[in-house]
Amino acid sequence: MFYHTQNLQFEAKPDAPDPAFARRFQEVLGGKWGEMTVANQYLYQGWNCRLPGKYKDMLMAIGTEEMAHVELICTMIARLLDGAPLSAQEAAVDGNPATAAVFGGSNPQHAIVTGGGAYPVDSNGIPWSGAFITASGNLHADFHLNATAEMQGRLQVARLWNMTEDPGVKDTLRFLLARDHYHQQQWLRAIQDLEAEGLDKLPVPDAFDVDQESPVRDAAYQFIDCSDGDQAGAGSWVDTEALDGSGRTLSYVKGTPSGDKPILPPGDPRLYGTPPPDMAPKA
Amino acid sequence: MFYHTQNLQFEAKPDAPDPAFARRFQEVLGGKWGEMTVANQYLYQGWNCRLPGKYKDMLMAIGTEEMAHVELICTMIARLLDGAPLSAQEAAVDGNPATAAVFGGSNPQHAIVTGGGAYPVDSNGIPWSGAFITASGNLHADFHLNATAEMQGRLQVARLWNMTEDPGVKDTLRFLLARDHYHQQQWLRAIQDLEAEGLDKLPVPDAFDVDQESPVRDAAYQFIDCSDGDQAGAGSWVDTEALDGSGRTLSYVKGTPSGDKPILPPGDPRLYGTPPPDMAPKA
Amino acid sequence: MFYHTQNLQFEAKPDAPDPAFARRFQEVLGGKWGEMTVANQYLYQGWNCRLPGKYKDMLMAIGTEEMAHVELICTMIARLLDGAPLSAQEAAVDGNPATAAVFGGSNPQHAIVTGGGAYPVDSNGIPWSGAFITASGNLHADFHLNATAEMQGRLQVARLWNMTEDPGVKDTLRFLLARDHYHQQQWLRAIQDLEAEGLDKLPVPDAFDVDQESPVRDAAYQFIDCSDGDQAGAGSWVDTEALDGSGRTLSYVKGTPSGDKPILPPGDPRLYGTPPPDMAPKA
Amino acid sequence: MFYHTQNLQFEAKPDAPDPAFARRFQEVLGGKWGEMTVANQYLYQGWNCRLPGKYKDMLMAIGTEEMAHVELICTMIARLLDGAPLSAQEAAVDGNPATAAVFGGSNPQHAIVTGGGAYPVDSNGIPWSGAFITASGNLHADFHLNATAEMQGRLQVARLWNMTEDPGVKDTLRFLLARDHYHQQQWLRAIQDLEAEGLDKLPVPDAFDVDQESPVRDAAYQFIDCSDGDQAGAGSWVDTEALDGSGRTLSYVKGTPSGDKPILPPGDPRLYGTPPPDMAPKA
Amino acid sequence: MFYHTQNLQFEAKPDAPDPAFARRFQEVLGGKWGEMTVANQYLYQGWNCRLPGKYKDMLMAIGTEEMAHVELICTMIARLLDGAPLSAQEAAVDGNPATAAVFGGSNPQHAIVTGGGAYPVDSNGIPWSGAFITASGNLHADFHLNATAEMQGRLQVARLWNMTEDPGVKDTLRFLLARDHYHQQQWLRAIQDLEAEGLDKLPVPDAFDVDQESPVRDAAYQFIDCSDGDQAGAGSWVDTEALDGSGRTLSYVKGTPSGDKPILPPGDPRLYGTPPPDMAPKA
Amino acid sequence: MFYHTQNLQFEAKPDAPDPAFARRFQEVLGGKWGEMTVANQYLYQGWNCRLPGKYKDMLMAIGTEEMAHVELICTMIARLLDGAPLSAQEAAVDGNPATAAVFGGSNPQHAIVTGGGAYPVDSNGIPWSGAFITASGNLHADFHLNATAEMQGRLQVARLWNMTEDPGVKDTLRFLLARDHYHQQQWLRAIQDLEAEGLDKLPVPDAFDVDQESPVRDAAYQFIDCSDGDQAGAGSWVDTEALDGSGRTLSYVKGTPSGDKPILPPGDPRLYGTPPPDMAPKA
Repeated sequence: MFYHTQNLQFEAKPDAPDPAFARRFQEVLGGKWGEMTVANQYLYQGWNCRLPGKYKDMLMAIGTEEMAHVELICTMIARLLDGAPLSAQEAAVDGNPATAAVFGGSNPQHAIVTGGGAYPVDSNGIPWSGAFITASGNLHADFHLNATAEMQGRLQVARLWNMTEDPGVKDTLRFLLARDHYHQQQWLRAIQDLEAEGLDKLPVPDAFDVDQESPVRDAAYQFIDCSDGDQAGAGSWVDTEALDGSGRTLSYVKGTPSGDKPILPPGDPRLYGTPPPDMAPKA
Repeated sequence: MFYHTQNLQFEAKPDAPDPAFARRFQEVLGGKWGEMTVANQYLYQGWNCRLPGKYKDMLMAIGTEEMAHVELICTMIARLLDGAPLSAQEAAVDGNPATAAVFGGSNPQHAIVTGGGAYPVDSNGIPWSGAFITASGNLHADFHLNATAEMQGRLQVARLWNMTEDPGVKDTLRFLLARDHYHQQQWLRAIQDLEAEGLDKLPVPDAFDVDQESPVRDAAYQFIDCSDGDQAGAGSWVDTEALDGSGRTLSYVKGTPSGDKPILPPGDPRLYGTPPPDMAPKA
Repeated sequence: MFYHTQNLQFEAKPDAPDPAFARRFQEVLGGKWGEMTVANQYLYQGWNCRLPGKYKDMLMAIGTEEMAHVELICTMIARLLDGAPLSAQEAAVDGNPATAAVFGGSNPQHAIVTGGGAYPVDSNGIPWSGAFITASGNLHADFHLNATAEMQGRLQVARLWNMTEDPGVKDTLRFLLARDHYHQQQWLRAIQDLEAEGLDKLPVPDAFDVDQESPVRDAAYQFIDCSDGDQAGAGSWVDTEALDGSGRTLSYVKGTPSGDKPILPPGDPRLYGTPPPDMAPKA
Repeated sequence: MFYHTQNLQFEAKPDAPDPAFARRFQEVLGGKWGEMTVANQYLYQGWNCRLPGKYKDMLMAIGTEEMAHVELICTMIARLLDGAPLSAQEAAVDGNPATAAVFGGSNPQHAIVTGGGAYPVDSNGIPWSGAFITASGNLHADFHLNATAEMQGRLQVARLWNMTEDPGVKDTLRFLLARDHYHQQQWLRAIQDLEAEGLDKLPVPDAFDVDQESPVRDAAYQFIDCSDGDQAGAGSWVDTEALDGSGRTLSYVKGTPSGDKPILPPGDPRLYGTPPPDMAPKA
Repeated sequence: MFYHTQNLQFEAKPDAPDPAFARRFQEVLGGKWGEMTVANQYLYQGWNCRLPGKYKDMLMAIGTEEMAHVELICTMIARLLDGAPLSAQEAAVDGNPATAAVFGGSNPQHAIVTGGGAYPVDSNGIPWSGAFITASGNLHADFHLNATAEMQGRLQVARLWNMTEDPGVKDTLRFLLARDHYHQQQWLRAIQDLEAEGLDKLPVPDAFDVDQESPVRDAAYQFIDCSDGDQAGAGSWVDTEALDGSGRTLSYVKGTPSGDKPILPPGDPRLYGTPPPDMAPKA
Repeated sequence: MFYHTQNLQFEAKPDAPDPAFARRFQEVLGGKWGEMTVANQYLYQGWNCRLPGKYKDMLMAIGTEEMAHVELICTMIARLLDGAPLSAQEAAVDGNPATAAVFGGSNPQHAIVTGGGAYPVDSNGIPWSGAFITASGNLHADFHLNATAEMQGRLQVARLWNMTEDPGVKDTLRFLLARDHYHQQQWLRAIQDLEAEGLDKLPVPDAFDVDQESPVRDAAYQFIDCSDGDQAGAGSWVDTEALDGSGRTLSYVKGTPSGDKPILPPGDPRLYGTPPPDMAPKA
């Protein structure tokens, strides 16, 4: 259950409106790697977590904090939207190309749909989707996703940092950059804990009924090169030790097919595919 | 530029049709973490990579291999779809509840739309989306995403392994499990290389004009707990050394607001929000 | 800013698993009219509200409560998913058609993707979308939307009530039905308050430069009938007083065109539309 | 069955092209609250209506009229698109920032995809979705949705009114404002009729097996406050009579949990969640 | 402008309910190639058509007829949905696997969301999208799309024909098959007319500033083979005359690159891509 | 299985950056009719093709070539994105309205999300969707779709040709125009081959149990006019010979209903539709 206080976690006061930046700021609110994503991803991972204790508690703690970041950015966006020019003609009144650029670079739905408010969409106005989050039930796999989510998020906020000179906006961006910086460390530390506690190693436990001598087993340790770049095998993903404790060595091979050229059966004639039944290949 | 050989990378021959499993197999073809995603994600990351050499070459190598996995699964699905019952009535003819379960558990578009073929959708028939891939230009952030993509993919294939007893299907799943196992190691190794070569550390370079003594700087090293689970601070994300080489210590604090309760300005009266202009608050 | 307690607002304990009902329960979690929608809709309306005081406070209060309902349903769904049959063959082992029906009626992603957990999708597995919410800045218009959201939600929960006999599930449904019942009343009361306080009447203030005698003015008070049902004019939307205080009477007319048959100009030849430039009509 | 006359219901003739306004006008054509939505929503409600007579007849009458509004706006948009600059360079030829603003503020698909025509998308080019409409089978719930649809639509048209000075465009907007004004009254009147005729009251009939003395019954009449705004209980949704004829009073309580802290069972080991089976909690 | 009569264009009366078939029937209502698509595609092409006369008139005629097909199928679906089992338990009461199959094969939203009615989604419940239609302004290109739309639609209806034995349903399917049969002929005839009248030939007029002797010119007449199937050049797309009146011959070549291996410039350092600025390649 | 060479099929070198054109170029990469669509459509049609030989071989050949076009356009877009202004303020520094137009007309995600790279979206940033492709199993229907795909694609590239003066960009566009020109001929030739070889004629074989004298049979040869344009019957789709070899004549009729006004049964009372059970109409 949740409680809310109207005080913000951090200030969100721009020095001046900037509707074009408001459009861009939407990316880290409602974009694929925005605050809506991390808030919901951590909360759903927490709700679905079947292991009581520190991982579940931490997921709920951070997911709840991210809701405060959603609130923070919404507040900032509403303040950035004041005074937007409503038409190209209005934008050109002062002859200043910056105003024309602002008009062209802003999101019309910020005026027509929300009347000067934030909404859960990205910087092109595309709605946030539940498909942006994953809660797989496997913490090792999910914590790698969480680490990249913080990295992608921090990268985007850092790019936004270079898109404004407004001191008030930069104050808030600094705070978001700091939180992402902690959180990317946190998920990497949590992965170390999972491994140290024997709860998970590389997903998934490797026991799928494979003869240890079979080519399929080998395929678990081979870089298969299907392009012609001459440096593709020059990294530590070749000729180094496997990370799974098997003692095997990662190796390099060129891509080659081991399967046949497939011939499909003719199909149910009631589905009217080509060919007609009497011309069908022998399956 | 690409070339194609009709021979498959590995065999894709089920012993018997199973339209309900064909629906489920779609998840690792056209779902968020399926082969369409990894193929396109690695190719786009390669095309956008601005650093020539081993990383770009490796991305193109693996992205191209993943296209062969798309092909492999399509072939398998087409073969699994033969002989599907077309109606509930037909499914019940033999009085076998397994046939009823197959009918109920299959995807109607496999008959109505594709006439017995695979298509780029997930196990609920939802189309693959370009939003499933990310190519950010930052290899460190993206390789963490690639690692989780292989982990999520391997997890899903392992779950599918437990949903069929068909020997031919299990052969192909074994091959896919092996490739995912190599690839998850590969991305983790590539992250190590990036760090060893000084190309990237935790994204993004931390230089955003912050006074080293300010509370904002502290926020980059704090676990802020907004839930009441009593184990949330019991992991190595608290009271350990920061991962960024700063020499700072990660610490624990309870969530508290530092911002005001926000009061928004009244807004442009031409947008007809509530309140009416004469009852608007003082901004 | 938000805080979280791990105790649930209400119990969420089914007496027995039921994966087919778990699929259906997703509708009121991640469907268009589910808890994700009302939680986010009220929170965004609150964050964007430019009138401090009771309306904004109430929006934040209810939006935060709805997050607890999201949590409640997620917990219930995870518990309903235990013991699901993983294949049609497994479902048919006991010869019980109910098990075959459960397999056919369940969502494969509950096993393959979430490993036995809830996620923000509807009963067909379609992701929740940010487009499901509206925060227009106009409270009168939005509160009518909120009222219908509670009505649609209550209707769906009532239908779910008839899809299960599980006492534990019914306990939770009863609680949700009760909350929806209060909330639908609340929004209707809030509309009355807005009108009583003169903050809003029928949106939007009617002052758009129309000659009071013009046919356009008349069009604001006419039922225009474009179908041939003979009862269409038999309701109180005809021959009654207008609701806008204008003193006018609502009237009935048959649909007729007042505009011309349009002829479009030929278009820019650089866009290669039909017709070719030399055969273009005179605009 | 439908018939069509090529004459428009009202004129749609701009005085001059304005591609940036054409992009904005798309919102009320193919946006969530645009004419595509109301036309289809009313038609589907009519087709699904199981009560013959005035409600069904009226739904078909209005749904058919809204198709004429779709046509009207399409015609206007095609005319607004003539003469659009095709590149930034072309837009800057005259040194007029208004032309630069028009280029930046227009939708590139209006040239590349439609060659100067309207299409069913919103002002950001996002396609209209069948998910925008609801036809629930319950007229009381649906008519509240229809009322808000007219209100949101009128609000958006009124905002567009302030985004243009073109007399021809304003003529058409005036007509649309008038029709929305009638229609919002119509749905409110129809709700009154439903209630007066005893066909529906607050959805859904309140008979869900609840002991009249239970706390669950109380929850149907309580404002539960989960935020800290001090005015949240100052509206008529507290300490007034319930709207359901029960004679009960609506009351105010602070949010508190009544459920346990949930502990989920360990889950099917074949789904490879965390924790591993031997470390699973006792359910 | 449109008018509506409540009489259906054709009867839509099933002999008995069949909720699993109702789900499947949705494909030709709200799927990519369903009646919603053809109705809207033809209407938008008509509204955007800049050539007055027979093509525009015909588009409006057929688009309006297709609205009657939408209505027809909606009516049928509502009638097919009666008496659906609401739970797996209810479905199994009679021990008949056909009832279990019907439950598993039906769409839960037909009960939870629409209360027994049709809605604009496909057979998996995915909403109809405005992206399904194209109105490009070029009639030659669009009429080929319209021809395939009728073919795909007829193919799907023919497949549905084999999924039911209900005489009433088959009556309606027969009518739809007949209309699709006429319409596919109609679009093919209209393409012949466009060509005969010199209004369009192969889109787009071939005049893009190409030296007649250049390799680029050759590329307009070459089959470039990038796979290893040995029959790829055995069709009339090789060694036959070009269809564009140029007098050239279509020829066969193997795929080969003519471009360089691309090296991208380092990018703006403010976007924090890899590599860091000091390690960037020379552009 | 696929192989890749890093050399491009054709050069992709702009003379100068142009971020606004880069946004527009995305349409033919990730839009509905872009290279992602044709590449995947042909590959899936090939993989699903149940007739070995020239058609399947040709589909694989062309699908693989189209992947090279995806690569080509990605490379071009990355090069066009260099040096983009990051803010309206930066765009206005030089007082040049062209720079303001470029800022307004560019895609913010090209900076924030991809850091200067291409991604699978259209010119409005909407992600590519698996729903854009069709592989129906019926080659006749699908080859008409493929023909229109090349026509729509060529039309869009031709429009882009008029949106830039950059010689390097025009070189690449010329190559794409040439390839589309060959491919549209190829699909038309392949349709001729299918018909000549008796593999398919108008889809689907016309044998649906219709009495040759029935009105339903007539409906397969009638233009039914539902609009009032006076030229609708003036094309060769009326009073000409049917294309199906039946020897019948296509004729013209005015639209009239042959079905009843439908009355739906009252519905399951457990779904709480209107009307209440005791006021339900007689079915």
